[in-house]
Amino acid sequence: MKKAHDYIGVNRDRFLDELFELLRIPSISAQSEHKPDMKRCAEWLAAALVKSGADRADVMPTEGNPVVYAEKIVDPAAKTVLVYGHYDVMPVDPREEWRTEPFEPTIADGRIWGRGADDDKGQLFMHAKAFEAMCATDSLPCNVKFMLEGEEEIGSPSLYKFCADNKELLAADIILVSDTSMISMDTPSITCGLRGLTYMEVEVTGPNKDLHSGLFGGAVANPANVLTRLVASLIDDKGRVTIPGFYDDVRELTPAEREAFNEAPFDLDEYKKSLDVGDVEGEEGYTTIERTGVRPSLDVNGIWGGYIEEGTKTVIPSKASAKISMRLVPNQDFEKIAELFERHFRAIAPASVKVDVRFLHGGAPYVAPTDMPAYKAAERAIVDTFGKKPLPFYSGGSIPIISGFERILGIKSLLIGFGLAEDAIHSPNESYGLDQFFKGVETIPLFYKYFAETK
Amino acid sequence: MKKAHDYIGVNRDRFLDELFELLRIPSISAQSEHKPDMKRCAEWLAAALVKSGADRADVMPTEGNPVVYAEKIVDPAAKTVLVYGHYDVMPVDPREEWRTEPFEPTIADGRIWGRGADDDKGQLFMHAKAFEAMCATDSLPCNVKFMLEGEEEIGSPSLYKFCADNKELLAADIILVSDTSMISMDTPSITCGLRGLTYMEVEVTGPNKDLHSGLFGGAVANPANVLTRLVASLIDDKGRVTIPGFYDDVRELTPAEREAFNEAPFDLDEYKKSLDVGDVEGEEGYTTIERTGVRPSLDVNGIWGGYIEEGTKTVIPSKASAKISMRLVPNQDFEKIAELFERHFRAIAPASVKVDVRFLHGGAPYVAPTDMPAYKAAERAIVDTFGKKPLPFYSGGSIPIISGFERILGIKSLLIGFGLAEDAIHSPNESYGLDQFFKGVETIPLFYKYFAETK
Repeated sequence: MKKAHDYIGVNRDRFLDELFELLRIPSISAQSEHKPDMKRCAEWLAAALVKSGADRADVMPTEGNPVVYAEKIVDPAAKTVLVYGHYDVMPVDPREEWRTEPFEPTIADGRIWGRGADDDKGQLFMHAKAFEAMCATDSLPCNVKFMLEGEEEIGSPSLYKFCADNKELLAADIILVSDTSMISMDTPSITCGLRGLTYMEVEVTGPNKDLHSGLFGGAVANPANVLTRLVASLIDDKGRVTIPGFYDDVRELTPAEREAFNEAPFDLDEYKKSLDVGDVEGEEGYTTIERTGVRPSLDVNGIWGGYIEEGTKTVIPSKASAKISMRLVPNQDFEKIAELFERHFRAIAPASVKVDVRFLHGGAPYVAPTDMPAYKAAERAIVDTFGKKPLPFYSGGSIPIISGFERILGIKSLLIGFGLAEDAIHSPNESYGLDQFFKGVETIPLFYKYFAETK
Repeated sequence: MKKAHDYIGVNRDRFLDELFELLRIPSISAQSEHKPDMKRCAEWLAAALVKSGADRADVMPTEGNPVVYAEKIVDPAAKTVLVYGHYDVMPVDPREEWRTEPFEPTIADGRIWGRGADDDKGQLFMHAKAFEAMCATDSLPCNVKFMLEGEEEIGSPSLYKFCADNKELLAADIILVSDTSMISMDTPSITCGLRGLTYMEVEVTGPNKDLHSGLFGGAVANPANVLTRLVASLIDDKGRVTIPGFYDDVRELTPAEREAFNEAPFDLDEYKKSLDVGDVEGEEGYTTIERTGVRPSLDVNGIWGGYIEEGTKTVIPSKASAKISMRLVPNQDFEKIAELFERHFRAIAPASVKVDVRFLHGGAPYVAPTDMPAYKAAERAIVDTFGKKPLPFYSGGSIPIISGFERILGIKSLLIGFGLAEDAIHSPNESYGLDQFFKGVETIPLFYKYFAETK
């Protein structure tokens, strides 16, 4: 792989120029006005993969945004790696908190700043450029397929059907995914667990129109007050979710597993300091890394109702709403949790209001066994580039489609991400370290080499 | 007053045309982009009052929006009536719920539809036209002064100083105000009590930036969740406000007073039906009209935080906020309540968040004695036009400046409003019945006549 690494060294600046072109496309899947940007982004990627060495690259339509599929088959008898990534990005609000233009990437302090710099354009582009380096230096030891979707941030609604419709095309020995983080550059890690997700929206309706809070205040249920009461009641004073049956299927870790998991380096004071919070808060009886890694949670992702502009308005709003998501762990079922949530929320609503409960999206939790060949190959590749054996890590995040791949395609995924917590994905001022990007580009060819050698 | 009434009958259409001109000016005091509309509206009113018969009408500057002052002195020895009203209106959101243009008034179903149709342009214009009718028919029995402000809906911040600076100019025997409602056209009433108001805004800050709810969910206090918890805790399960000291100064009605007050006609089933709610909700142990008339309340007027656009975003917001107002009754002090609120809200916030608490505006409750001469004169006038003796009524609304008038100018106010609950003031589709408007214009000259006759 020496030649491939030399190639990477020589082409650093061009790789970044190309990545910046990709980052400039505002491919926000959650906002319908960006529909044309999704197509443009997919076309850009297909062209880029052909230039990098793919035999073919197609922009394949789905019911939603297109999937970019590309491949290079070196030897039908060789192992096949299916690279998955997503070219859609999160919305940029609150816009005013960005210190740079979200879609005009810049380099400062050794980092690339912009929406998608890490999640997931920066990470998927590492695979494109590692692939190019191996092709250009004639050192690609596996067949490679790319499947890059444009709907991950909205729950991959079209990719399940796409996978079911294209099982043969997507056949592979492993799915390789860089859409996760490491503990730190000094403590590399491979994600072996992902939480699942159930994302709901609730709307509480009180009176049939906005009312004057003087003439009606105190006598009519205010849906904003009722919403706070209902939402607050979803978590008890021990930090546990109160929805009946919520914990029924949660697999409790054994004492030995808990001990091993808590060996990951973690500094609570540093964590609090980095977030500027006076204290952490979560389920009683669990450590902070357990709370995000192996325990389920419930968060308000958005809440709104009444007058939220400048000044004052003495109104009892007719409606108030919240977006509420729950992170799930093995063996919770996201659809069952959605049902339990809906049933409970309807049950606790008082007669003074009506409630509407909608399921927006979800996905199952995922576990990658640390003894599978791809995991072992990734471990060796990271030892080569980081000089340390990576720790297995349970991430709190969710990539719902990963468990979908296993269910539909019967293929395990290896989650070799080079992100860091400081990358601020989904937040204003997202960034990705130049060292993270190039360590990724260098590690990936080594993974292919070791994976090709496994039985 | 026969001639004045005839004059009104002849000029009905012109009165409405003029009112429509006034309603077309979008004088929203809460929104700074409407600053030029405030001045334009004041100038329009001053010109209209001169045309109606005023000796002088001035647009007098204040630190905020101008006050329109006009007067006609018929006899220094006669009684003087100071008419107070406000030309500013509420914001129009949610805009999409209006069935007509809020600032393009129309007549349908015997009602005038548009923002300000009742509150307070429609009501103050009754006084301008009643004044005109008396001037034109040489039947004005009192001196008249007008004081029309442009900041009532934001708490009259400049009018207190204006009154203090112009005590002599504003000297009068009574302040006459139409900015309230009657029970119904069949059950006329005079408002003898108003609730006070303390309006606060709270902001809860958790982590120093928006976080990914997967990577941090369950381990970090989510300010939106914390806000729901804190706000929900402000009212207990008996519907009582939990702020320590909140009820200390509340004057409890005597059993006889409660009995008399509850004699006002009120149909709970009709009330629920008109609001389309399955049940009412409020402080245990009190009737619905007591809850709005003589008991304090606490309402969320606005709440916001996190992602509130289309689609989903898995975010833990850095901040979440709410606008919360409390209606107060005699003898609660709005500044003391603001202090108690702030102290309590800070005290209940957990160490995992920071809170910011701001006082936005407030005003004291007010009581008008039913034995004062102006009340008796109004009672007689309403008997003449409605054929029934009006009931004394405790309104749930607040007009903070009314108690300010008494404190600063030493003058009592008479609240003779012709609004109805169905007028939907502060809401989309505000309206004002043509019969309400013209009954008002006809009743006012009779009030002047009877008031001039009192000692």
